[in-house]
Amino acid sequence: MRSSYKDSLAAVALGAVLCIQPVRAQEDAAARVAALQSRFAALGERAARVDDVNEIENLQGSYGYYTDKMLWDEVVDLFADDGTLEIGPSGVYVGKASIRRYLDSLSGGRQGPIEGVLFDHFQLQPIVTVAPDGQSAQGRWRLVLMTGVADSGSGGNWGEGVYENEYVKDGGVWKIRKLHWYATFVAPYEGGWLTTNPKAVEDFAMGRGVTPDRPSTVSYDPYPGVFVPPFHYANPVTGQTGARQ
Amino acid sequence: MRSSYKDSLAAVALGAVLCIQPVRAQEDAAARVAALQSRFAALGERAARVDDVNEIENLQGSYGYYTDKMLWDEVVDLFADDGTLEIGPSGVYVGKASIRRYLDSLSGGRQGPIEGVLFDHFQLQPIVTVAPDGQSAQGRWRLVLMTGVADSGSGGNWGEGVYENEYVKDGGVWKIRKLHWYATFVAPYEGGWLTTNPKAVEDFAMGRGVTPDRPSTVSYDPYPGVFVPPFHYANPVTGQTGARQ
Amino acid sequence: MRSSYKDSLAAVALGAVLCIQPVRAQEDAAARVAALQSRFAALGERAARVDDVNEIENLQGSYGYYTDKMLWDEVVDLFADDGTLEIGPSGVYVGKASIRRYLDSLSGGRQGPIEGVLFDHFQLQPIVTVAPDGQSAQGRWRLVLMTGVADSGSGGNWGEGVYENEYVKDGGVWKIRKLHWYATFVAPYEGGWLTTNPKAVEDFAMGRGVTPDRPSTVSYDPYPGVFVPPFHYANPVTGQTGARQ
Repeated sequence: MRSSYKDSLAAVALGAVLCIQPVRAQEDAAARVAALQSRFAALGERAARVDDVNEIENLQGSYGYYTDKMLWDEVVDLFADDGTLEIGPSGVYVGKASIRRYLDSLSGGRQGPIEGVLFDHFQLQPIVTVAPDGQSAQGRWRLVLMTGVADSGSGGNWGEGVYENEYVKDGGVWKIRKLHWYATFVAPYEGGWLTTNPKAVEDFAMGRGVTPDRPSTVSYDPYPGVFVPPFHYANPVTGQTGARQ
Repeated sequence: MRSSYKDSLAAVALGAVLCIQPVRAQEDAAARVAALQSRFAALGERAARVDDVNEIENLQGSYGYYTDKMLWDEVVDLFADDGTLEIGPSGVYVGKASIRRYLDSLSGGRQGPIEGVLFDHFQLQPIVTVAPDGQSAQGRWRLVLMTGVADSGSGGNWGEGVYENEYVKDGGVWKIRKLHWYATFVAPYEGGWLTTNPKAVEDFAMGRGVTPDRPSTVSYDPYPGVFVPPFHYANPVTGQTGARQ
Repeated sequence: MRSSYKDSLAAVALGAVLCIQPVRAQEDAAARVAALQSRFAALGERAARVDDVNEIENLQGSYGYYTDKMLWDEVVDLFADDGTLEIGPSGVYVGKASIRRYLDSLSGGRQGPIEGVLFDHFQLQPIVTVAPDGQSAQGRWRLVLMTGVADSGSGGNWGEGVYENEYVKDGGVWKIRKLHWYATFVAPYEGGWLTTNPKAVEDFAMGRGVTPDRPSTVSYDPYPGVFVPPFHYANPVTGQTGARQ
């Protein structure tokens, strides 16, 4: 990609040189200026994509920090109006009101942290891919869970899995259009992942007394079953899509 | 934000076109050049902020890698001369000499890794916000701890919490002005977070035989208590500060 | 570093002003244009380095996601033709064919996830340093492992350590030239790091029935032993290389 930068810079220099030399032909110059214009624009667009990646990483990171503390007002506002949420086998909740209904169901209708409840959601290992037009993006992330309820008879849980999410730029601001977590496992702290079963994922992910707007988009068995959540991105070296198995 | 880029680019193109057309009026041109100048500068400043974020992430990441190995010379040099350190209920240590006294107290006055001691400090999930003038910044991070001392009768600990830190650019170099870790919990490996109590945080965080320069800036109960460490940043979608509860 | 930006911008503005003023002397103007050209190029190069960091983070992150699922075709393609792999005490595997032989040995010659096998490789806390010419880079990362085989009599393992890796830009694409993981520990889920011994690292890292092309580049004892994996980067504040102990 660096060669395109160098082309841009050469064009800019050419444009500058033009300024202080006698103008030979208006049509030549116009063409050169047009080339300069498009190459300079390309450079600016690439810089804008870097800002987009940073903004999306902050968006998803904020989702994690707010969810840790069950700050549902803050969480729901991160979604686009037509945003969707799908947590493991939860089914799909569509739109802010439904997403809020799901989240409230996890906390008994309250928001804010609850004495004795740990609900840590680590947002790790981002791979964010912004569309060329800068209006949408996709991201793969790793979620690590530390959860538990004091005096509940359960000893807490570890959990792990990956998100494949979508983002949309709406009014100049990045929002979550699709949050989709694929569970690898949820497992009891005592005993760990080798003693767990898929029901632990259901216990973690299903809304309590609420019904999703749409069924799950995919069916798979968490650990000890296996599943490869589809990659939104091509192999970064080969450019080949669809991971080979 | 992309529109400001486009404005910049249009202005540059306009400037270039001016070069090869007859000059109509010096005052018009001067105004256009001034506009070009300020818009081009804005683009450069945005690019500089991206570099700042990367440099601050490397600074905080380095803090973690050096602390893992108790390389106190390296750690202390990451702080500004008037930098402060506050680890959970430790109180506030002010300036490099005090910070070094605190760190030394954790390792019995030695530096470098100690046989049988694990002191891993993961630095995760950064949200770094640089001030518009590029001279200061704030960052939220998640700390995960894996600690333990072989043959100590303790089986080691997990720990988790968030930092809200401040950074300052001093002589063109980013330094830590304030390191403040809010403990969620420190908990025994055996039994985990649901069997812990706030005393484990004290055992981890308090200096041994040293006194802080200032009392703690905030009082709260670690898990099973609850506390929301203040967010230095506004909700990235609504721009609203002060997370609602 | 911001001052170099400002110089660049001033030069661009100067160039623009030149366009609409009478040309005084061709030689003066040529010098100014040359200065503009080189400063503008410097700005472009800095922007390119930011893209490089993002691309390398995506490369290493992809390594982790593919390795989780033992997608060896995808993993091997991330390496340069002369790339090397060294995992703790594994010895060094050189070139794609050898690396594939090592990886296949871990999974009994199969690729893709295996029922009952957890092989999670978290790629965390990146510090990526790109060479000034943008053709090579180095990166420090933290690896966290969650592994285990159902019904194997083992209860699974935690693991942690750091990578010091090298990358090369080949045909405009970043590839892994050297992957080197320094093990801090691998430890049984039951009992944790304080009950482990270095043999657990060997059990994790050594190829099964395959021989490395070269012996290990370094010898050290994992936990409870201590070792500081060399830092590829200088202290970000002092610029001093070689961490002091």
